[in-house]
Amino acid sequence: MAGSTYGTIFRITTWGESHGKALGVVIDGCPAGLPLNEADIQRYLDRRKPGTSSITTPRKEEDAVEILSGVFEGRTTGTPLSLMVRNTSQISRDYSEIAEIFRPGHADYTFDQKYGFRDYRGGGRSSGRETVGRVAAGAVACRILELLGVTVYAYTRSIGPIEADMSRFDRTVRLSTPTAMPDRDADDAAIKYLEEAKKASDSVGGCMECIVEGLPAGIGDPVFEKLDANLAKAIMSIGAVKAVEIGDGCLVSSRRGSENNDGFRANDSSVIDDTRVIKTSNHAGGILGGISDGDRIVIRAHVKPTPSIFLTQQTVNKDGQNVDINIKGRHDPIIVPRAVVVMECMTALTVLDAMLVNMSSRMDSLIAFYKK
Amino acid sequence: MAGSTYGTIFRITTWGESHGKALGVVIDGCPAGLPLNEADIQRYLDRRKPGTSSITTPRKEEDAVEILSGVFEGRTTGTPLSLMVRNTSQISRDYSEIAEIFRPGHADYTFDQKYGFRDYRGGGRSSGRETVGRVAAGAVACRILELLGVTVYAYTRSIGPIEADMSRFDRTVRLSTPTAMPDRDADDAAIKYLEEAKKASDSVGGCMECIVEGLPAGIGDPVFEKLDANLAKAIMSIGAVKAVEIGDGCLVSSRRGSENNDGFRANDSSVIDDTRVIKTSNHAGGILGGISDGDRIVIRAHVKPTPSIFLTQQTVNKDGQNVDINIKGRHDPIIVPRAVVVMECMTALTVLDAMLVNMSSRMDSLIAFYKK
Amino acid sequence: MAGSTYGTIFRITTWGESHGKALGVVIDGCPAGLPLNEADIQRYLDRRKPGTSSITTPRKEEDAVEILSGVFEGRTTGTPLSLMVRNTSQISRDYSEIAEIFRPGHADYTFDQKYGFRDYRGGGRSSGRETVGRVAAGAVACRILELLGVTVYAYTRSIGPIEADMSRFDRTVRLSTPTAMPDRDADDAAIKYLEEAKKASDSVGGCMECIVEGLPAGIGDPVFEKLDANLAKAIMSIGAVKAVEIGDGCLVSSRRGSENNDGFRANDSSVIDDTRVIKTSNHAGGILGGISDGDRIVIRAHVKPTPSIFLTQQTVNKDGQNVDINIKGRHDPIIVPRAVVVMECMTALTVLDAMLVNMSSRMDSLIAFYKK
Amino acid sequence: MAGSTYGTIFRITTWGESHGKALGVVIDGCPAGLPLNEADIQRYLDRRKPGTSSITTPRKEEDAVEILSGVFEGRTTGTPLSLMVRNTSQISRDYSEIAEIFRPGHADYTFDQKYGFRDYRGGGRSSGRETVGRVAAGAVACRILELLGVTVYAYTRSIGPIEADMSRFDRTVRLSTPTAMPDRDADDAAIKYLEEAKKASDSVGGCMECIVEGLPAGIGDPVFEKLDANLAKAIMSIGAVKAVEIGDGCLVSSRRGSENNDGFRANDSSVIDDTRVIKTSNHAGGILGGISDGDRIVIRAHVKPTPSIFLTQQTVNKDGQNVDINIKGRHDPIIVPRAVVVMECMTALTVLDAMLVNMSSRMDSLIAFYKK
Repeated sequence: MAGSTYGTIFRITTWGESHGKALGVVIDGCPAGLPLNEADIQRYLDRRKPGTSSITTPRKEEDAVEILSGVFEGRTTGTPLSLMVRNTSQISRDYSEIAEIFRPGHADYTFDQKYGFRDYRGGGRSSGRETVGRVAAGAVACRILELLGVTVYAYTRSIGPIEADMSRFDRTVRLSTPTAMPDRDADDAAIKYLEEAKKASDSVGGCMECIVEGLPAGIGDPVFEKLDANLAKAIMSIGAVKAVEIGDGCLVSSRRGSENNDGFRANDSSVIDDTRVIKTSNHAGGILGGISDGDRIVIRAHVKPTPSIFLTQQTVNKDGQNVDINIKGRHDPIIVPRAVVVMECMTALTVLDAMLVNMSSRMDSLIAFYKK
Repeated sequence: MAGSTYGTIFRITTWGESHGKALGVVIDGCPAGLPLNEADIQRYLDRRKPGTSSITTPRKEEDAVEILSGVFEGRTTGTPLSLMVRNTSQISRDYSEIAEIFRPGHADYTFDQKYGFRDYRGGGRSSGRETVGRVAAGAVACRILELLGVTVYAYTRSIGPIEADMSRFDRTVRLSTPTAMPDRDADDAAIKYLEEAKKASDSVGGCMECIVEGLPAGIGDPVFEKLDANLAKAIMSIGAVKAVEIGDGCLVSSRRGSENNDGFRANDSSVIDDTRVIKTSNHAGGILGGISDGDRIVIRAHVKPTPSIFLTQQTVNKDGQNVDINIKGRHDPIIVPRAVVVMECMTALTVLDAMLVNMSSRMDSLIAFYKK
Repeated sequence: MAGSTYGTIFRITTWGESHGKALGVVIDGCPAGLPLNEADIQRYLDRRKPGTSSITTPRKEEDAVEILSGVFEGRTTGTPLSLMVRNTSQISRDYSEIAEIFRPGHADYTFDQKYGFRDYRGGGRSSGRETVGRVAAGAVACRILELLGVTVYAYTRSIGPIEADMSRFDRTVRLSTPTAMPDRDADDAAIKYLEEAKKASDSVGGCMECIVEGLPAGIGDPVFEKLDANLAKAIMSIGAVKAVEIGDGCLVSSRRGSENNDGFRANDSSVIDDTRVIKTSNHAGGILGGISDGDRIVIRAHVKPTPSIFLTQQTVNKDGQNVDINIKGRHDPIIVPRAVVVMECMTALTVLDAMLVNMSSRMDSLIAFYKK
Repeated sequence: MAGSTYGTIFRITTWGESHGKALGVVIDGCPAGLPLNEADIQRYLDRRKPGTSSITTPRKEEDAVEILSGVFEGRTTGTPLSLMVRNTSQISRDYSEIAEIFRPGHADYTFDQKYGFRDYRGGGRSSGRETVGRVAAGAVACRILELLGVTVYAYTRSIGPIEADMSRFDRTVRLSTPTAMPDRDADDAAIKYLEEAKKASDSVGGCMECIVEGLPAGIGDPVFEKLDANLAKAIMSIGAVKAVEIGDGCLVSSRRGSENNDGFRANDSSVIDDTRVIKTSNHAGGILGGISDGDRIVIRAHVKPTPSIFLTQQTVNKDGQNVDINIKGRHDPIIVPRAVVVMECMTALTVLDAMLVNMSSRMDSLIAFYKK
């Protein structure tokens, strides 16, 4: 099991490597009858496309998606959706140096140790291009969630020391700023910071945040399949993520219970039903005991700086000899702006799957479903 | 799927709730021929037992484990190990108040929303007692890892503002300090801090850290089943954990690539083979591209303060009416010291499973295995 | 993975061996709110109990079930049900001979080859007692199916050359005949046949059949998770089953299409809706393309004679030397009458799981579920 | 979960429908370092290609496979293999009649009931073309098994009343006879029988058999993941299969134990080790207690006649009205000859996966693997 499948009911299997013929994903378990076309998916893929600003690689990646199966007369049939993106812009060049040397911060050495050899062209399966399949599948998940009244959106929270000012938060702004920040002033400052780092042949880390709105209370499971546990896995599985926080995250470890507990309140004192319960704060980030509480889900991911930097670094070659390495090529000085849509997609996939799994949690709804 | 099963090959299924008759775990996929007796498991269970110091609940939980199946003449048979702990000390008392009211910070409300009702006695399945099964199974995993030369150990890194001084780190110390800190001075300070919080009817959060030593390079998978992704899920699935960090974790988001990359070096310039590669630093925490790099694995978890505090809190009752709640009973002022062994066990389960899954990753070792 | 878990959503994990302390099952994914008590389960376990007639072993197996978790105030909570049966009648005797010798037709040799050694007492995990867990879990599945309007029942179709006359079929009769045949005359004849075989120190094979009534059309999946494929696995996983047929089974291979196709007809010529479609025959056994067609599901299983016979047989010992074996002890001369309830339970588990998995197959029902 | 994934470690996910753009499969968990090219796979696909004799449809299906990922410099990399076959010969024609009418013996009605509508062109996902992905993946499994010394081959055992004479069995003959029979005389007789049936506008059923040679003893698991249980599922999941037999199959139900048990014997009286144990007969078909016994595995499948016949049949239309149907188009009069390679492939996938899962069954081999 090489671990390229994700999800229990809405189950995706991604394939493809940086410099292969194509990349893609098979989605199994997509409910039948969803209106879907290539443009619905392309919109998400375009958000991870490079070459659109000074702070991304000038590589061209068209990433035009093709639906190969699972849609008939404009609707999903319930059978596997196969989505493919042909690789078109991979420049054929000399990889002999990188073939022999392990790049620091990359998976070169660990891949070799696991499999005995590796496809060294552009990182192979460990390349960021692997996320093409995740985003294509996530686009479908987002479309379903929309119809269920659930919205998922991610954005860049900080880049190096530059943090977005959340008092100026505007959700749509993240779609037009090169940094995917939801605040134009922070975006300006971050671009300056990135250009300076780039000039210094260096790269920069950052933090991204994802919000889920409209998710009903009661989604997730109480033990190993906690909603936050699955989100942690989903987000940590994105290359370069080194920490995941839910709600107030790391802050809770230095807090008192009286500060950290969120009180419950009736939303409306006159007419009361279960869905009318709200919280006085959201330190929990919308999840209690692994199950959604009806409040906004808040997830943060800390992303390391792009390991491909243009400074000389110490490493070893395949024969275990000490060598210096000088990386060439076209590399983003930061991963975050293009990873934001990946985080959005992995979150959507996780939340949707939890909603599908949840459908059989009660006898009364099971009976209602089958004894109409 | 209520999500009580964990693992692909070494697969555990836990069961039981706080005030039920018993709690336990079934381990399926344990290799045959492992010497195992109840004492091997009891040692781990004893580390999560309360009532041993001023900073844990005075509740008595004997937690004596019984091996019901899967061991014959002192060795595992390869068939399911069923491990059970009878609940003996659950005091029968009046739960009518808590039955009607949702405790802030607990899973009461979310459980009710999911299942329509809940076993309100002591948190039911969402109680910390659920981890009895995890620890019993983890003890078996640890024993196997030991025979493979892999060591896993966790300890308390900080409690509220009190941090262990890692220059005074002593691994065995964590087994005798009430806080599970690896540094006696920090332990003393933390106990004072906790007693003060307890007096204020409040509770405290903390941070725990887990180390894996001796894990060969090459363990883990490159996409969704990344070793760090699975560790993140495993650790985030422990109740009250709100953030998981690998290696330098959150720090990476404000770093430059030149600071964050770990260089590779030959361990010994004379005789070189693959296993002789080391890193000049370990910001990565022993994992690159989801696969172990042969260095120490470092994981940190941030744990929220015990939600059961003795101050008056605002909440709603089952009918959605605003009410005040005053929690009674015996509760730990902090979760961390007893959760440390749970982190150790979840880490061991994850690492062992990854090692078993990894056995078929190469044709050459597959052929060697079957064509002896 | 030792393969002791079955099911995707309604997922059971069985444990225990013939002469261990206990046997049991954990059911994860049981919907919350099902009224359940021990008597509901005991009724099914009693049907696999031996010692009730001349044609079963005189061994006493009380098999009293205990619910250890997952039920609160008489209803399932949605969390794992742990069901346990203590072993009480295992006679301590001298196993030294069977410990050293591989019994023909049993799993002794193959177990040893896989695991390196085995629990030789009474077959260990390969004993028919392993089905205690299956039956306990199946009893719960049957109870849920009942509430959904689905009925599952199995019976003995034939014993050696004696076949039940289906024109005399009476469903309740199977519960009182020692052979589990649904026809008293055939039961009488079969008992005579069995007594004669027993006298000859020999054993007998038989065929059992299971019917599912009331299952709506549309359950099952079109490719690997076909309903008939999963039923085949479920039934073939019962020890001693060597063939599984769906509908007309083996007969189809010598038929023409014109004989074998089932025509469709409107059930009622006046008011027509989809559920009013019936078939003119049921050669298909209620499944087309892996999906239920609304007709009765028909499954047959061919069961080999009990391998423990009292005639001298040729075999080898652990050292690979040729030896003769004379089996002693208390053994059923036929497996079928006690396996019928196991077939019923495995069928129920499979059908219920397929119904739960099916809940998310359409967008319209998904939206209806969440946007009430 | 639409059930398009098969296998635990060597895990395949198929996609595509009869008249879509393409069909394919993703193989995840293929060991790294296997030499592989498109010709290795094409050879198997060519065996399921129609249009090569009077007894298959004259439809042309080129079915040229393309490896899209997972192979680098002629060897598998350990990451997903994506294999695709473009649909090229689907004739665009008028489907309006079949769109409105449920064909007897097909999945039309059940698909509609499950998903609310269907891709009616050529059966959509329920078409025999779905097996393209299975065969492409099975070709890879066969190649690995070969390197492990395991051979899998299937052939036609009977067609209607014409049975192959196994005393004339020749394994290679099955590759050149139009019927895939291993006996040229039976092939001649079967072709005559099929031509006569075709003239009568009718179709014919048949039986296919698969043999596994060289599989070591000890493969498979003792409870739900029995090797025979998984084979039963694998084979029953092939469209039109209605019965699966292992070894002597259905015959066992009318046998005595003394006839049915296979004795064990030392293979060589001088030098004895475990692998030197043989059986005096093979009624069991190479599997005891769900685990391979080192003997030949024997599996048989009974396949129904092609449901598309050219005689007038009774059915209903989408509105539930009684109508007559006259099927047109190009259809095989029998499914078996082209399904034989599918059976071979599903068997290979199952056996290989069981071998990979088995690698961690013993502590001693686990320790040997990691402590080299």
